[in-house]
Amino acid sequence: MDDRPGAPRQNASEEIEALITLMAKLPGLGPRSARRAVLHLVKKRALLMTPLADAMHNVAASARECLVCGNISGAEVCHICRNEKRATGEICVVEDVADLWAMERAQVFGGRYHVLGGTLSALDSIGPEDLRIPKLVQRVADEGVSEVILALGATVDGQTTAHYIADALEGTGARLTSLAQGVPIGGELDYLDDGTITAALRARRSF
Amino acid sequence: MDDRPGAPRQNASEEIEALITLMAKLPGLGPRSARRAVLHLVKKRALLMTPLADAMHNVAASARECLVCGNISGAEVCHICRNEKRATGEICVVEDVADLWAMERAQVFGGRYHVLGGTLSALDSIGPEDLRIPKLVQRVADEGVSEVILALGATVDGQTTAHYIADALEGTGARLTSLAQGVPIGGELDYLDDGTITAALRARRSF
Repeated sequence: MDDRPGAPRQNASEEIEALITLMAKLPGLGPRSARRAVLHLVKKRALLMTPLADAMHNVAASARECLVCGNISGAEVCHICRNEKRATGEICVVEDVADLWAMERAQVFGGRYHVLGGTLSALDSIGPEDLRIPKLVQRVADEGVSEVILALGATVDGQTTAHYIADALEGTGARLTSLAQGVPIGGELDYLDDGTITAALRARRSF
Repeated sequence: MDDRPGAPRQNASEEIEALITLMAKLPGLGPRSARRAVLHLVKKRALLMTPLADAMHNVAASARECLVCGNISGAEVCHICRNEKRATGEICVVEDVADLWAMERAQVFGGRYHVLGGTLSALDSIGPEDLRIPKLVQRVADEGVSEVILALGATVDGQTTAHYIADALEGTGARLTSLAQGVPIGGELDYLDDGTITAALRARRSF
């Protein structure tokens, strides 16, 4: 009942309806929460809506993909790839920029990244040429990389991609590792799936 | 761990971080979903982010509260108050513009509205002078209103406000009604609270 096309009565002005339609396209926002967000914006026009619109214009004008690693950045080469301190010879391979951000939030990795831009997927017909895998092979050869850390999702597609990359990097001399699988911090066994418990038991360590 | 202030490493460019901070202020979006939304926006710069920024600028420039009813609109007097067909002598009193939009979506009410802008609340020290109650009393006298429909929430504050309005409108000759309470359409008794079942039983009708 929410979004009948061509409903005869308009709730608000055309400008507001247009804004709601656009906001509803954001991930995590449906028509209902988009309306709520727009009402909030209208109430805070000067304090929030105008700065937000300006910030979007700024990002739309400046954001681009790093030519080296695929990270989103304001420059042709991102600040991680420009930072000489991070030339540790380690490359962490992630699926998406969101995963790169998650790794950076953990503040535990000091090397550089390589963003694939997705995973291999037969169902969605995403092949190696659609991802940044050739570029990764080239970087491993050019940058004298000693270790490639595969930080891909523990999904079928993620693991398929990991195996494909392992094949592609064979013979380059770089050590290939992947994130450990096991019980997440704060996780209770009762709520864990069988697969995780199996993986954690198989990879058990002396205490 | 998400939003440490002054975290030493920046995930993205300053522009993107500023946009994430602003997006996270929207209702329903936390830091995590704001990041997800911004990544989506960055990927769809031309198709979504620029139009969204433009739409926000348009609304920020044009949106204002209707001088008569308090609805959000692009003009000094909203399209409902301007529409002569809706001068039915009925005024529907709602708490917020979101409630007005919800009533309009139902397409069942043909009169005009009055947006209070909140409810009386002793805890938040919101008194009658903070709401549009004096303006409502004036409208009922000026516009020859025959019926005032109280469409306020079935909360303590909503009902307090309803009683206050009933007192304020006493002697104006306008009939005062309120929305029926009962089982919502599609509602299952098993999932309803005691209060709703009590109200529905007390207001039972012959079948």
